[in-house]
Amino acid sequence: MPLARSAIVRIAGYTPGEQPRDRRYVKLNTNENPYPPSPRVAAALRSFDPARLRLYSDPLATELRRAAAKPLGLGPEWAIAGNGSDDLLTIAVRTFVDQGGALAYTEPSYSLYPVLADIQGATRVPIALDAHFDPPADTAARAARASLLILCRPNAPTGNACARESLAAICRDFPGVVWIDEAYADFAEDNCLDFVQRFPNVVVSRTFSKSYSLAGLRLGLAFAPPDLIAEMMKVKDSYNLDMLTQVLGLAALEDRDTMLGNVQRIRATRGRLTAALEAMGFAVLPSQANFILARPPSAIAAGALFRALRERGYLVRYFDLDRVRDYIRITIGTDEEMDGFVQAVGAILGQAAG
Amino acid sequence: MPLARSAIVRIAGYTPGEQPRDRRYVKLNTNENPYPPSPRVAAALRSFDPARLRLYSDPLATELRRAAAKPLGLGPEWAIAGNGSDDLLTIAVRTFVDQGGALAYTEPSYSLYPVLADIQGATRVPIALDAHFDPPADTAARAARASLLILCRPNAPTGNACARESLAAICRDFPGVVWIDEAYADFAEDNCLDFVQRFPNVVVSRTFSKSYSLAGLRLGLAFAPPDLIAEMMKVKDSYNLDMLTQVLGLAALEDRDTMLGNVQRIRATRGRLTAALEAMGFAVLPSQANFILARPPSAIAAGALFRALRERGYLVRYFDLDRVRDYIRITIGTDEEMDGFVQAVGAILGQAAG
Repeated sequence: MPLARSAIVRIAGYTPGEQPRDRRYVKLNTNENPYPPSPRVAAALRSFDPARLRLYSDPLATELRRAAAKPLGLGPEWAIAGNGSDDLLTIAVRTFVDQGGALAYTEPSYSLYPVLADIQGATRVPIALDAHFDPPADTAARAARASLLILCRPNAPTGNACARESLAAICRDFPGVVWIDEAYADFAEDNCLDFVQRFPNVVVSRTFSKSYSLAGLRLGLAFAPPDLIAEMMKVKDSYNLDMLTQVLGLAALEDRDTMLGNVQRIRATRGRLTAALEAMGFAVLPSQANFILARPPSAIAAGALFRALRERGYLVRYFDLDRVRDYIRITIGTDEEMDGFVQAVGAILGQAAG
Repeated sequence: MPLARSAIVRIAGYTPGEQPRDRRYVKLNTNENPYPPSPRVAAALRSFDPARLRLYSDPLATELRRAAAKPLGLGPEWAIAGNGSDDLLTIAVRTFVDQGGALAYTEPSYSLYPVLADIQGATRVPIALDAHFDPPADTAARAARASLLILCRPNAPTGNACARESLAAICRDFPGVVWIDEAYADFAEDNCLDFVQRFPNVVVSRTFSKSYSLAGLRLGLAFAPPDLIAEMMKVKDSYNLDMLTQVLGLAALEDRDTMLGNVQRIRATRGRLTAALEAMGFAVLPSQANFILARPPSAIAAGALFRALRERGYLVRYFDLDRVRDYIRITIGTDEEMDGFVQAVGAILGQAAG
């Protein structure tokens, strides 16, 4: 008899995007930022005394939470910090969903959500996004038997952001907790951070992995009414954020301008890449994130394009899943990287046509 | 109605030892190492290029796991790395204990174990340690309804290490998973790492927080047969170890000599402190860890001594719990710190007697 819970034995687990080591690729597959983090992060790293590491870090990450909540006019009791926003999503499921309970999420979206339901031994309640990849108007009703509903805005891997007020209606109508995963919100035109003060049941999460260029640091934040934060604080590991992450994360927060400058460049490149691919016959979904989802012209299938790009040193993401298997997802790199990428695509399409 | 699971609403959560900021203390309360980590850790930190942080870390921490398993003659598939050994204990409970199931552990021991049972919504099965604070001979039978049994060796907060072969008998007789928490094993005369090859149901965990002087880095390792590791890998967060932790952890592993030198100094100081306290009328439990549990002479209660030491700038740990409430737990600091500590204790006892 297996020693692990049957909920665990029967699942395969989550498959992260490739972090290959066999050769150098232009990595356009895991929505990393092509620009380095703030010079303040580098300075904080250089001036950090490694002897400090013998001591435990602040278990409550108070300075970081205070700095993060301040621009919202809120205190640290409105925020929780996680070892990446994946840590926060795990904490969310363990706080709000019983084994034998149900977790609702929209589909297609971040493929971790159903895996977290599986690990908890909860029922998956997938809700199909509509024709525009927006949550349907009856999302709250469809999620009714779940205690937690996760929505990603802007959505991954589609890149679109649904209307704020249609999301607000879902938050109003759903009796459980609505978790709005805003991993990509810094690249979007607006966000839903104010919902945490409008609704008693809303959590909004952010990550430093994308806009702040700190995927390798593992830092996420979630904002919510203090009573929800207090329950999640009971569930998190006591010392879930190491000392360096707290110090470097704080340095990043103190230099929002570098982050915003990188975001502006990425948005501009996103526009250029979209135009270039459309000129080659691609259908590109309108994106508010640091990636685009693009359907190649009929001369080549998405899976074949993915493999041909890999051979030429460009790693993108291909999802062999309903509704997105005709697309590839391309992380926005530098202008130079995207020029090379467009050339590679042109060459592949030329071969396919010839 | 509360939005969180009832399992969470009804608990208080784990209380970590104080990390005070009101004044400078000699911190002898959370079993930190008084010596800095290896110079190789400092060098690795200085040479780390912060621009690398824009990329995700290796989700499998393969290099670190390979380096950790190699001295045992094993491959990386025998090891899992965690964001501190608390992360690994959380993963253990989520992998091996169902909500509504049961988690067994000995008592008194690390107070996180029952909290992890509570969070999972599992029944606590505490097993009282015997008069020597060793697991009783019928531990396996008493744990029978649990799927996971956690044992700490050397035990915290008592410091003793039970006989290896009595632990082996428990591993043989218990049908579920036996987790041996060896957080303090580097300070002990022997350890149970070889059990992972002797038994199909044994996991042994280690931490870098104590012997490696890296509490602030958050790094733990667990060793077990590959099929158990594979199930735990499904449960862990994909990117649970940040890039700096992997790089600095590897640097620490490559310099075992610095760690062993610090351990030798701490063991020598432990002997000196024990003798000094015994000379003042304390009863000190024999310790194989980097702390001692000591019962003050009848002139002063343990709680009063704890508070008086705090006023004099010495933080130790006091547990108001059955069987240990007559003791204080003192982390071993430097010889100089311990000299000051012994003086402070002498002054307090003098006042109490006078």
